[in-house]
Amino acid sequence: MAAEKLDAFLVSSAANVRYLSGFTGSNGLLLVLSAGGAILFTDPRYRIQASLEADCRVRVGTGPLLGHVLPVLRKKKSRRVAFERSRMTFEMYQSLKEGLPLKSSAEPVAGWIELQRMIKSDAEIALIRHSVLVNSRAFERAVSGVRVGKSEKDLAAELDYQMRRLGAEGAAFETIVATGARTALPHAQPTAAVFGANSLILVDMGAMCEGYASDMTRMLFLGRPGSRVKRAYAAVLEAQLAGIAAVKAGVEAQVVDRAARRVLRRHGLERAFVHSTGHGLGLEIHEPPRLGKRDRTMLVPGMAITIEPGVYLEGFGGIRIEDTVVVTHNGCEVLTPTPKTLRIL
Amino acid sequence: MAAEKLDAFLVSSAANVRYLSGFTGSNGLLLVLSAGGAILFTDPRYRIQASLEADCRVRVGTGPLLGHVLPVLRKKKSRRVAFERSRMTFEMYQSLKEGLPLKSSAEPVAGWIELQRMIKSDAEIALIRHSVLVNSRAFERAVSGVRVGKSEKDLAAELDYQMRRLGAEGAAFETIVATGARTALPHAQPTAAVFGANSLILVDMGAMCEGYASDMTRMLFLGRPGSRVKRAYAAVLEAQLAGIAAVKAGVEAQVVDRAARRVLRRHGLERAFVHSTGHGLGLEIHEPPRLGKRDRTMLVPGMAITIEPGVYLEGFGGIRIEDTVVVTHNGCEVLTPTPKTLRIL
Repeated sequence: MAAEKLDAFLVSSAANVRYLSGFTGSNGLLLVLSAGGAILFTDPRYRIQASLEADCRVRVGTGPLLGHVLPVLRKKKSRRVAFERSRMTFEMYQSLKEGLPLKSSAEPVAGWIELQRMIKSDAEIALIRHSVLVNSRAFERAVSGVRVGKSEKDLAAELDYQMRRLGAEGAAFETIVATGARTALPHAQPTAAVFGANSLILVDMGAMCEGYASDMTRMLFLGRPGSRVKRAYAAVLEAQLAGIAAVKAGVEAQVVDRAARRVLRRHGLERAFVHSTGHGLGLEIHEPPRLGKRDRTMLVPGMAITIEPGVYLEGFGGIRIEDTVVVTHNGCEVLTPTPKTLRIL
Repeated sequence: MAAEKLDAFLVSSAANVRYLSGFTGSNGLLLVLSAGGAILFTDPRYRIQASLEADCRVRVGTGPLLGHVLPVLRKKKSRRVAFERSRMTFEMYQSLKEGLPLKSSAEPVAGWIELQRMIKSDAEIALIRHSVLVNSRAFERAVSGVRVGKSEKDLAAELDYQMRRLGAEGAAFETIVATGARTALPHAQPTAAVFGANSLILVDMGAMCEGYASDMTRMLFLGRPGSRVKRAYAAVLEAQLAGIAAVKAGVEAQVVDRAARRVLRRHGLERAFVHSTGHGLGLEIHEPPRLGKRDRTMLVPGMAITIEPGVYLEGFGGIRIEDTVVVTHNGCEVLTPTPKTLRIL
């Protein structure tokens, strides 16, 4: 902030507010002052919680929180006030700009906190590891109940229930369970469609535990898979292992993506792989870096990322395999303990 | 749009995109053209889903969606392009402004779709009614298992599981279960705290069913409530009933809030009521109108709103009672069927 000659930084993203202050409520603004110190603004619903959680001063007020921030900025004569360009709405930006004195300015900045958050502390990795284990245990418990006649929604409900019973706050994102041709929808919402005999099932799930996310995709098959399923599965598994093998401190994110994509190309499946190979995760389920075709972020020890190539063939189905891994100096550690064979039920 | 001389309206809120186009994916932009017609932009993950759901043209592209919208706007020579002021980030606004030809302008608008959404169609009310019933049934099923030694997290997991088993997509918001003094935190996240003998329990839960939300708060007591709990409960119930009695087409939202607040003032509890009396709900859990102290929105038949006064006494506990109701010409219909007595277990 000093280098950019900023007097204050108004943090509006809930995950960033939590990261910096410890406050976990849904309505908060954190004002970081370059002179030192920070003030958390929240509403009366969170008065008690904020005083317990936040490690800075707390101001409680009704109505839009910005209305309580502006007098502080005016009183402190803050000239250059940074805000999060990709997190703040246009409306809040306008209120900020209009509420500041004429000589002051609102300065858009991006990624400051996100870049810090990309590299996890040991304590954060321990929390992600715990989240991954809870997620995998929930998967085991729920999968033992899968049989013909159960629906996508039944299994999704069971997965989420088991996560919660194991202590998770909840799912890190809407659990995906898809069967048959619906597995070709990378972000399928679970429906009442029931598992038939000889059906492919895709499960993409993550837990949120003490604020930290996990993410895993596994494939099940009820009955006996045909050769097409087996071949597609083998290709995706090979791509996923190649992706993992490419992870290492000092390489660019795009190198990992390319490693997975190259395998699928060799199997003639490159065009069926319609998303990037992975993403960072932590306090949010999607964080930088993205492991995409042209992502040049350098991998650094402590980054927690997913490796999740997939192929999607309309009318036939889709296959995706996904682990959560942590970048190390020499490679990576795969946190996800769930076996990666096509699970035959 | 014609009245405002707008050529196009770029809709970025997921709920508004769904309302207008039917598309339920998480990444979509809808371009509504004043010349007629609309185009939905999404990414390859949603190619199949978008073609099944959207009732308009679909364009699929990789990378930021705005990059695919801008060429269309330039080709159509759109001069005045509206965007959602309170939904679009500052960053996207900047990209829009910079991507438009010099003679074109980005025009902030607010609440256009939200105002339409405020008044529900009969089909929407049927969906909300269904969501409310699923929610209440899940409550009944889960509450039958409450006993000393279970934790807030256990009950929250059970509530969410039952919702899902009854067909909900999931919870409409993070289910709140709080016990003892933690009931004084209006937005308590469930913890490992266990229910003791003689403990007050607050449950605030809502289901999301076919995209529509419900919302309900009920109080349980394990053991024999003391007179202080009983008196606070009676005061909140009286306030909640007074709020419901004040709901009627043609009255302002603030009148409902005042009716509930007046009762609590008479009981000396006005300062313990730290939020507004309710809010609209539908595709989102919080929609206009707000039933707050100074909200002058006129209630109209077809609005679905919550009535949820509460009192919060630090160190002692909190009481809240909440129903989902629909405004009618002569009053309202209370959709929530769950009895409103303090439930003794």
